[in-house]
Amino acid sequence: MNDALKSLEQGMAGNGLDAMLVTDPKHVYYLTGFASNPHERFLGLLLVRGEEPVLIVPALDEEAAQSASSVSKILTHSDTDNPYELLSKQLSQSKLGTLGIEKEHFSLARYELLNAAVPVGTISDIGPLLRSMRAKKTSEEVNKMKHAAELVEEVLRRGLKHVATGVSEIELVAELEYLMKKVGASGPSFDTMVLSGPNTALPHGVPGSRIIQPGDFIMFDLGVYAGGYASDITRTFAVEEADSKLVTIYNTVLAANEAGIAASKTGATYGSVDHAAREVIESAGFGPYFMHRVGHGLGMDTHEYPSLHGLNEDIIENGNVFTVEPGIYVPGLGGVRIEDDVLVTEDGPQTLTSFPKELTILHL
Amino acid sequence: MNDALKSLEQGMAGNGLDAMLVTDPKHVYYLTGFASNPHERFLGLLLVRGEEPVLIVPALDEEAAQSASSVSKILTHSDTDNPYELLSKQLSQSKLGTLGIEKEHFSLARYELLNAAVPVGTISDIGPLLRSMRAKKTSEEVNKMKHAAELVEEVLRRGLKHVATGVSEIELVAELEYLMKKVGASGPSFDTMVLSGPNTALPHGVPGSRIIQPGDFIMFDLGVYAGGYASDITRTFAVEEADSKLVTIYNTVLAANEAGIAASKTGATYGSVDHAAREVIESAGFGPYFMHRVGHGLGMDTHEYPSLHGLNEDIIENGNVFTVEPGIYVPGLGGVRIEDDVLVTEDGPQTLTSFPKELTILHL
Repeated sequence: MNDALKSLEQGMAGNGLDAMLVTDPKHVYYLTGFASNPHERFLGLLLVRGEEPVLIVPALDEEAAQSASSVSKILTHSDTDNPYELLSKQLSQSKLGTLGIEKEHFSLARYELLNAAVPVGTISDIGPLLRSMRAKKTSEEVNKMKHAAELVEEVLRRGLKHVATGVSEIELVAELEYLMKKVGASGPSFDTMVLSGPNTALPHGVPGSRIIQPGDFIMFDLGVYAGGYASDITRTFAVEEADSKLVTIYNTVLAANEAGIAASKTGATYGSVDHAAREVIESAGFGPYFMHRVGHGLGMDTHEYPSLHGLNEDIIENGNVFTVEPGIYVPGLGGVRIEDDVLVTEDGPQTLTSFPKELTILHL
Repeated sequence: MNDALKSLEQGMAGNGLDAMLVTDPKHVYYLTGFASNPHERFLGLLLVRGEEPVLIVPALDEEAAQSASSVSKILTHSDTDNPYELLSKQLSQSKLGTLGIEKEHFSLARYELLNAAVPVGTISDIGPLLRSMRAKKTSEEVNKMKHAAELVEEVLRRGLKHVATGVSEIELVAELEYLMKKVGASGPSFDTMVLSGPNTALPHGVPGSRIIQPGDFIMFDLGVYAGGYASDITRTFAVEEADSKLVTIYNTVLAANEAGIAASKTGATYGSVDHAAREVIESAGFGPYFMHRVGHGLGMDTHEYPSLHGLNEDIIENGNVFTVEPGIYVPGLGGVRIEDDVLVTEDGPQTLTSFPKELTILHL
C-alpha cells in the first residue's frame, strides 16, 4: 500500500470518519497508482475503518486496474450494473456513521443515488484533507515535477524556432503540442495558448488564425503532463521590435513575478504572494489591468489547492508547489504574463522553471 | 438569442420551473455561444422566468464573453469575490419556488454554497431536459459533426503512412494529434489511442513505447473537436500478416458493427442497438469478450446522452447521433474494435464516418 493511502487510513479515526469513498480519478491515482479516465462511469476507492480497501472500477478497466493498483481487492461493474448496489453490499456489513466524500467532486445526482442505495448518516468533506496531503509534495513528486518542467522548457525552446513569417497562432500551438509528445511528455497539461498582438490582452484568449506580425508581443502559456504531474509556464516575447509602452509593462510584470517568487516562503500566507506581486503592478499604475490571482497550486492537476489570491490566509508549507504568474492586460494594446513554477523549501523558494526572463526579441 | 435558449425559456413554465442555473460549460456554450473552460471558477447562466437571462463569468473572461455570448447581460466576479452573492442579489427580487440545476454537474460543495447564499425551496434536475435537447441535433449541428468526421478520417488516412519499422504506439499518437491541428481541427476530442499486439486486448489501454511488430493487430481510436463538435472513430488493422484467429474476430466485430448500425432506427430502443451487435458476437462464441456497451451519444461532448447499453429502453429519435463500436478483447491474444458515428434520420441510419472497414493489412 502506498504511503499516502496508509496515512489517510491511519487518520480516519482522528478525523471522525467511519468510511471514505474517494471518486476523483486523480485522488484514486494518488492513493492506488491506478490512473484512469472513467468518463461518466463510476470509479471509487472505498475505505472502511478496519477493513481492506476496495477499488470499484468499470469492467473494461479491470485488467488495467489489476496491473497498476496497489489495492488488490478490485470489484467491477458493467455498463448495465448499478455500481451503488456494489457499494451498498460492501457497506451493509459495517455500522456506517460518518462517510467522507469529496464534496467538490461528488455531484448532487451521485449523492442522491448513493443515498438511495446506502442510507448514509453523516457526510463529511474529505476534499480539504486530500488537497492538503497533495499540496505537500514528497521528494519523489518534486522530481517528477522537475522533469515535467524541463520537458516543457525544451518544448518552448524548440517551438520558438517555428516563429517565422506567415506562421499563425494555431500553427504554433500544433508545433508545440507535437513537440510535447516528441520530447516524451504524455501531452499538454491544459490547452496550449499562443496569443499575439492585441490578442495578448485576453488573459484567457483562444489561439486563432492570426498571423504573427513584426511589432507584436507574443505570449506562450503551455504545460505538459509527464509521469502524472503537470508543469505550467508562461513567457512573453517581442517580435522584431518592442513597443516602448509594452517594454514598460514587461519590466513591471517581470518585477512583479520576482517579487511574488521572493515572497513564497514557509510560514507566510498564500495571500502575501499575491500582495507582493500586485503591489509592484499597482505602484506602476497598472493595478486595474491585473485582474486575476497571482497563481495556483500545481501537481497532479494543473490547477489544484492552494489558490493564491489576496484573501487566502492559509499558511505556506515546505513542499508546496504553485505558479507565480502576474500579468498586465491593456485592451487594444496588448498584454504580458510571466509565469514560473515555484517549490517552497526550508531554504526558501526554488523555481522549477528556469527559462530566461529578460525581454527577448524574436526574429521572423 | 439562440433557438435552444429560446425553447428552454419557453419550456420553463411547463416544466414547473421558476428559475434555472446552468453551470456546465458545454451547456452554457450551447445556449449562449460562449465557449470557455472556467476550471474551478464559477460560470453560470441564470434564467429567471420573465426576466432577462444573466451570464455570470470570471472577470478574466469578461471580454471573451462579451464578444461571443448572445446573452448580453454579463456579470463578472474576481478571484476574491463570492459568486454566490452575485446569484443571491439576482435572485432576491424574485419569488423563488423551484430552481432547475444540472444535478450531474452540480457538486455537493456548490450546492451547499448556493443554499447558504440563496435559501432555495425545491431543486429540480434540468440535466435530462438539456441532454434530450442536445441529443436531437439540428441540421447545423449535423453539418459540424460531418465536418469533424471528415477531419478525423483525413487524420487517420495520413497517420497510417507513419506506421513503419521501429515506430512506437506513442509516436503514432504524436503524429495523429499533430495532424489534427494541421488539418484544422481544434484538437483531439479525447486521448488518442494507438494500441498494438497484445495491448489491443485492453479496451481502455494507454499507448506506450511498444514498437509495432509484423503480425500485430493495431487499433486506432481517435476523434477531433471541430467547431465545438466531436467525432470518434475506431479502426483496427493487421501489420504485414493476419493471424487467423484474429481474422475470425475481426469479421465477427465487423458483422456486429453493421448489425448495430442497421438497428439504429427511429422508434427502436437504444438498448436494441446493443442487442443487435451483441447477438452477433455471442452467436460466434465471443460474448464474454465484449464487456462494454455498444456505444454512446456524440455531440458537443465525446460521451453524452444516450448511453447505448442493453437495458436502455429510451426511444431513438431522428437527429440522434451516437457511436456504434462493438469489440472483442481476448487477453493474451489481442482485440478488435470497429467504431462508426451514426446519425439517425427518417430515411434510416446514416454513418458520418466512412473510412473503409474490410480488414486491411499495413506494411512496415
